[in-house]
Amino acid sequence: MTPLKGNLIFGQSGGPTSVINASAAGVFLEALDHPDIIPGVFGMHHGIEGVLKDDLFDISGEDRRELDFLCGTPSSILGTCRYKLANPDADDGDYEKILAILRKYDIRYFFYNGGNDSMDTCSKVSRYLQSNHYDCRVIGIPKTVDNDLFGTDHCPGYGSSARYIATSIAEVWQDTHSYTTPMAVVFECMGRHAGWLAGASALAGVIGCGPDLLYLPEVPFDPDRMVRDARKILGQKNVVLISVSEGIMTADGRLVAEQLSSRRADAFGHKQLGGTAALLADLLASELGVKVRGIEFSLLQRSAAHCASGIDIEEAFLAGRTGVKAAISGASGVMMGYARPDQGPYRCDIIHVPLDVVANREKNFPLEWINKEGNGVTRDFIDYAFPLIQGEPHQVHEQGLPRFARLKKIPAGQGIQKEKTLSPSK
Amino acid sequence: MTPLKGNLIFGQSGGPTSVINASAAGVFLEALDHPDIIPGVFGMHHGIEGVLKDDLFDISGEDRRELDFLCGTPSSILGTCRYKLANPDADDGDYEKILAILRKYDIRYFFYNGGNDSMDTCSKVSRYLQSNHYDCRVIGIPKTVDNDLFGTDHCPGYGSSARYIATSIAEVWQDTHSYTTPMAVVFECMGRHAGWLAGASALAGVIGCGPDLLYLPEVPFDPDRMVRDARKILGQKNVVLISVSEGIMTADGRLVAEQLSSRRADAFGHKQLGGTAALLADLLASELGVKVRGIEFSLLQRSAAHCASGIDIEEAFLAGRTGVKAAISGASGVMMGYARPDQGPYRCDIIHVPLDVVANREKNFPLEWINKEGNGVTRDFIDYAFPLIQGEPHQVHEQGLPRFARLKKIPAGQGIQKEKTLSPSK
Repeated sequence: MTPLKGNLIFGQSGGPTSVINASAAGVFLEALDHPDIIPGVFGMHHGIEGVLKDDLFDISGEDRRELDFLCGTPSSILGTCRYKLANPDADDGDYEKILAILRKYDIRYFFYNGGNDSMDTCSKVSRYLQSNHYDCRVIGIPKTVDNDLFGTDHCPGYGSSARYIATSIAEVWQDTHSYTTPMAVVFECMGRHAGWLAGASALAGVIGCGPDLLYLPEVPFDPDRMVRDARKILGQKNVVLISVSEGIMTADGRLVAEQLSSRRADAFGHKQLGGTAALLADLLASELGVKVRGIEFSLLQRSAAHCASGIDIEEAFLAGRTGVKAAISGASGVMMGYARPDQGPYRCDIIHVPLDVVANREKNFPLEWINKEGNGVTRDFIDYAFPLIQGEPHQVHEQGLPRFARLKKIPAGQGIQKEKTLSPSK
Repeated sequence: MTPLKGNLIFGQSGGPTSVINASAAGVFLEALDHPDIIPGVFGMHHGIEGVLKDDLFDISGEDRRELDFLCGTPSSILGTCRYKLANPDADDGDYEKILAILRKYDIRYFFYNGGNDSMDTCSKVSRYLQSNHYDCRVIGIPKTVDNDLFGTDHCPGYGSSARYIATSIAEVWQDTHSYTTPMAVVFECMGRHAGWLAGASALAGVIGCGPDLLYLPEVPFDPDRMVRDARKILGQKNVVLISVSEGIMTADGRLVAEQLSSRRADAFGHKQLGGTAALLADLLASELGVKVRGIEFSLLQRSAAHCASGIDIEEAFLAGRTGVKAAISGASGVMMGYARPDQGPYRCDIIHVPLDVVANREKNFPLEWINKEGNGVTRDFIDYAFPLIQGEPHQVHEQGLPRFARLKKIPAGQGIQKEKTLSPSK
């Protein structure tokens, strides 16, 4: 088939990761290699909101060298959003605006990088454009540190957060095991509904520096049970390291974090938010009388590009680059997913997953990967996650600090590529 | 002079750092290069407590390759302690034990690596041995992430924590600035009495990703003032990043952390500890109605060897190695301090600082390096600290995780070096 000629637009959505910009680099650099098919490349300023506001960047005018630096730059360089499009059957106002902008800039390649909601946005846009007979290839690029995206073996961003968590816990293991005084440390990892990130704590166990206890949101959390487990460990050694997911809930279905939030007020009389690790550390201090530390990885775990997984960066880049190649070849309405062989050494293959299959579904943490005591993970999980944290980060340092990409962020329509990229609206 | 022949002992004391083991490597590797003068090298298991309990390791039996790995291994490989020796005039029981052990193992070189208290220990041991006419060279090696050790330009460990804090804040800056929703983030750095570590947050500003507001313990902290400062920033942009020292106190001399501790109870009715960042984040949430995050660097900031400063590692190693050379040449009763030239490019020279000058004194953060608004640091501080975060970490990775040193930790007297290192007691 003759390739569809027209411009490409790319947007980032949802919570940032250490490697979402690597996918951006993959899309941009590949697209810029096909000026005959894709004369202009645009970026959405704050995702779909940028399209609705006609607030776009002209990527064609950026230096290639700076685009390369994206692979070591965390977060969403174009800006992100959490905007949820209405159902087009109920209200197609947003879609009319989107189509008008696509026509205005002659966009024929629509790329959206995000999680469940973003794939839903992508899916809705794809169906609307089809039903309005506007020829445009719509491609979803996965992203989420939570690793809960359906239809893919794993998600770009997860491996890097997993590597950061495992490395940090191993280093704190070294720190806490240098004392003779008994101590309990509670680590808090992201993951409201799925234990993928908290589970990654167990990877530190590969070098003998993992947590002793691990509590995932898939298993009802019992504070007394944790205290008993911790007391048992402290009967054998000086230190107990515990890692939990922010989403752990007691049997009554209430988040431990919410119980904290609803029952604690700070020194100035204001309501306290979050802090599951701090809460559980306090509990252990009073129940076991040991020194405690609560360590919440917070935003660090999704932005620590200095400790990213090389494999994760390469796969995130590949998802973007392969997406452009696939779209040029005619693919549309699909997400670039990851697959690995059932047997043999780890390998990551890019697969096409229909957007409506991905949208608004979650990939749960397999219950059979949680030990029967409900306080750890099995070897199967380690075998799954370990390949994903391999390889060194691609971050370049200048004078001891990260060298982040510096984009000109040229407003679309004002850039040096203006004449080239703006063809008359249809 | 003819060099003093006898064995060497080295101990680590106080809170660990990312590079205290690099000093150990410097001492061990240099000492092992002088078998004619120093036939045996020992390590104290948990600092001076290991001496008092005759619990020592025979380092002579370790693989050199593993000793090299110490430069990428955080915390105190030999184990640490916080034991404070009595005043020998009041009670010399401990000193008699120490002297007996030194005689038993024919120790003629006594090395102790730590902060203020450790230099006090070192100083007392030195004077006791002198007054008892036991010929032994006593050398102190500095260490503390707090950078508050007197008599040295800076302390081993500080540069690495500073680099980790600056890098992490720069990465979180990238994360938070990708949203359109207003947000306030409060970072909490170590430093009970001195603002050296919180000040290091400002190094992220060198690449335009630093905190907007910075509060050090040297200036009385006013919560309302912080809210006003933050509101002003949020009038200009979407995000305000605030970094504070754990030691900030209100004008009445009470730690903000203590106010939290004394007035908050957790969901299970227990007392809550620490959490200055969380407290201030809550305050900002309720006063400004913005999304907030409190991020406490906790133990991460002193154990993150994966983000250590190359300069810091090299200087820590140099302090240990130079200490051994100096002791062989006759130096005793001194700490290996750092000095830099007043003018010209940064250079680190090792100086000898008398132990009794260092002991139990603190190097304060210069008040003239705090801006007149009391919410930031001056260029002079940046010029001081920036050279200390240069250079890449020396951490080796295996399969995506840190390769920590694996010492055999051969008990002294049972090691393969036994015959060689144990000469008859005097």
